[in-house]
Amino acid sequence: MSAPLDDILVLDLTHVLAGPFATAQLRDLGARVIKVERPGSGDDTRAFPPFVEGQSAYFALLNFGKQGIALDLRSDADRAIFDRLLARADVLVENFRPGVLDRLGYGWEALQARHPRLILASVSGFGQTGPDAGRPAYDMVVQARGGVMSITGEEGGPPVRVGASIGDIVAGMFLVQGILAALLERGRTGRGARVDVAMLDSQLAILEHAVAMVAATGKAPGPTGARHPTITPFATYRAADGFFVIAAGNDTLFARLCAVLGLDDLPADPRFATNAARCENVALLKRRIEAVTLEAPRAHWIAALEAAGVPTGRVQDVAEAMADPQILARNMIREVALYPGGPLLRAPGNPVKLSTLPDPAPGGAAPRLDGDRAAILAWLEATAAT
Amino acid sequence: MSAPLDDILVLDLTHVLAGPFATAQLRDLGARVIKVERPGSGDDTRAFPPFVEGQSAYFALLNFGKQGIALDLRSDADRAIFDRLLARADVLVENFRPGVLDRLGYGWEALQARHPRLILASVSGFGQTGPDAGRPAYDMVVQARGGVMSITGEEGGPPVRVGASIGDIVAGMFLVQGILAALLERGRTGRGARVDVAMLDSQLAILEHAVAMVAATGKAPGPTGARHPTITPFATYRAADGFFVIAAGNDTLFARLCAVLGLDDLPADPRFATNAARCENVALLKRRIEAVTLEAPRAHWIAALEAAGVPTGRVQDVAEAMADPQILARNMIREVALYPGGPLLRAPGNPVKLSTLPDPAPGGAAPRLDGDRAAILAWLEATAAT
Repeated sequence: MSAPLDDILVLDLTHVLAGPFATAQLRDLGARVIKVERPGSGDDTRAFPPFVEGQSAYFALLNFGKQGIALDLRSDADRAIFDRLLARADVLVENFRPGVLDRLGYGWEALQARHPRLILASVSGFGQTGPDAGRPAYDMVVQARGGVMSITGEEGGPPVRVGASIGDIVAGMFLVQGILAALLERGRTGRGARVDVAMLDSQLAILEHAVAMVAATGKAPGPTGARHPTITPFATYRAADGFFVIAAGNDTLFARLCAVLGLDDLPADPRFATNAARCENVALLKRRIEAVTLEAPRAHWIAALEAAGVPTGRVQDVAEAMADPQILARNMIREVALYPGGPLLRAPGNPVKLSTLPDPAPGGAAPRLDGDRAAILAWLEATAAT
Repeated sequence: MSAPLDDILVLDLTHVLAGPFATAQLRDLGARVIKVERPGSGDDTRAFPPFVEGQSAYFALLNFGKQGIALDLRSDADRAIFDRLLARADVLVENFRPGVLDRLGYGWEALQARHPRLILASVSGFGQTGPDAGRPAYDMVVQARGGVMSITGEEGGPPVRVGASIGDIVAGMFLVQGILAALLERGRTGRGARVDVAMLDSQLAILEHAVAMVAATGKAPGPTGARHPTITPFATYRAADGFFVIAAGNDTLFARLCAVLGLDDLPADPRFATNAARCENVALLKRRIEAVTLEAPRAHWIAALEAAGVPTGRVQDVAEAMADPQILARNMIREVALYPGGPLLRAPGNPVKLSTLPDPAPGGAAPRLDGDRAAILAWLEATAAT
C-alpha cells in the first residue's frame, strides 16, 4: 500500500504544540517531515515534563517519526542548507509570531517568487491579520478568550479549562485541513498557496450549540457541569464505585432507563413525562436516579442499560482509556521510541483509518536535537542533480 | 478565485453533529454538498433548540449552504434517484451505525464495484471494527470513556464535560482529513478509498499531555480546574470585575508579572524562584497574586501585562467572543439564513484561511426538508448525458 502523502516533503519550523501536532498528522498520512530546530535548546517541549531518562516524553509523543536537524536561520551556512531543503519541500509549516518569518527573508512573497509550488502554512495565536496579530498567545489564553472556558465547569462555578490543550490541537487540525486542500488545488493549478490559521478563530469554529444560542437569543450560555444543556437525563451519575454516563436522548430511551432502574412511576409523572419537563426538574430527577444507582457498581448498571439499548459508559481516566479493549482493537495505541534506540513509550495511534493506509500506523523514534544532520546532508548531496 | 473542492460533489447522508460538521467544512472548501434526509422528520437536529420562528437555529448553523433532498432509501423510486446522485458523487459521507449502510445495499464492497472512484467516509461512535462497533454513542459517552472528562473540572471535584461537543467535533475534523487525503490519493491512483473514523479513537488522539503522563509514569492525571498542570503561574485569576488569564510560562515572564503587580519580593523568594517551586506553592502564589488583582478591573491588568509582554486575556463568554474585534477582523462571523429567504443568523466563519479561497467565506441558507428536490432532479436530467 502507498500512503496519500508518500511523495510529500514537509519542512517543519514549528515548536511546542499546534504546529508539531499538525505535522504529526501529515507524517501519519505518509509525508516525510524534517523538523528544523534552533541550535542549543531546540523545541521548547524538549524541556517539558514528564521525563524518562532525562528526556521529555511529551516531546517524543509529538515528534516521533520526524527527522531532526538544528539550523540557525541567521547564519549563512545554515541558511544555505535551509534553502536547499526549501527547494525540495512541498510544504513549509511555521508557528512563529507573525512577521518573524518575513524578517528572516522567508515571507510569503519571497517564497512564492522563488518556489511557486511551495505551500506556506502558518499557525499562530491570533492569525496573520487583525489588531492582535502580533500578540503572544498560549492555549489557555485562547480557550479563555474564545469562549469555551465560559461553558465548561460546574453550574454557577468559575470557568474551567478543557483538560486537553484544544486551543492548540484544534488549530493544528484546521492547519492540516488547509494544507491538504492546498495540495489538492496545487494538483490542478500547479501553484502553492498560503494557509493562515489562528488559534482564536479555531476556538469559535467548534462551539456549535453555544454559538447557536447566542445567534438565536442573544444570550450566552454558562457551564452545566457534566450535563447536556438541553437534553435530560444526559449526564454523569454516581454508582457505588464511581461515575458513569446515562444518555437517554428521547422519551423511548427514558422509559427504558426507568424500567432498568425500577422507577416505573416516572415516565407518566408530569414532572418527567417530556424532555422539557425533565429539563425543568433536572435536580430532582438526578436524585431519583442516583438514589438507585448508588446501590450497585458501574459494571452492573452499564450491563443492564446496554442490554436495554440505552447509551451509557464509564467515565474513564486516561490510563483506563489507553487500556480500553475497543481502543486496543482499533490500533489506537502504538509504541514509539523516546530517541533512536531508546525505551519504548505508548503513543496514540492514527484515528484516520483509510483503506489505503497501513494500520496499525508506523511508530518510529523521536529525533535527537540535530540527530539527522548527517543523513539529511547526505541526502541533499545524493539528490543534488534533481 | 477558485476553491480547492470546486469540482467535488459530496453526497451527505449524515445527521446530528459529527457528519454535518464535517460536510460543512467541505462546503467551505468549495464542495457542493447535497444533504439527503429521511422523509417526514429529517435530520434529528431540526428538532433541537434554540428555535427562531419555530425552526432550529442549531440545524441552520450546521447545514447552511447545503442543498436538501428527502429520500427513503427503502423505496425503489427514491433509491433510483439516490443511485443517479451516487453516479455523480465524489464522496459519500454517512454516520449510521456500522452495518446499516450494508443492509441498505450501499456497503463498501458494493459501492467500490459500481463506483471505483467514489470515496466512502463513515464516522461512528466506536468505528467499523472492534467489539463495540455496533454500540450507540453520543458525545458525552465518548467524552467520558475517552478520558477528557477525567482531566476536566475542579481539582478533586467530579468529572466535567467539555462545554462544546468535542466528541463529535474532533471526529468530524479527522473525517475531513481522511476525505481530503483520499481525494489526493485518488488524483494519483484513480481509485477511491474507505475512510473510517471513530469518535472514541479521536478523543484519545487529542489528549497530548495526559497521554504522555500515563506513557511516562503509568499514572493518570486528574483535573486541575483552570490551571496548567505543570506550569505556574498559568491560570485564571480574579480581578475586581471578573476572571482573566495570566500565562507566565517561564522565569522571565514571571519576573515581569511580579514587577507589574508590585510583588518585587517574589522572584527571589525560594518558594517562587523556579517553576518547580511555584508549582509546589501554587495555592499560596494564587492568593498573593489575587490579593493584588482583586483591587482593579480586568482591563487595567490586561493593559499593564500586555505592555510588559506577559501573555494574558479576558475569560469571555460566547457572546463576547462573537463580538471580539479580532474575531470580527478575521471574518470569523458571517450571516446565514435560517431557511431560503428567512431571517439572518450569525454563524462562525471559516477558520481555514487560504490565499486561494475567498474570505469572508460565503454564507447561504439552511435547506428546507426536501426543499431542493425539484432543482436536484432538474440538474440530474440536464446532466443525464454525462
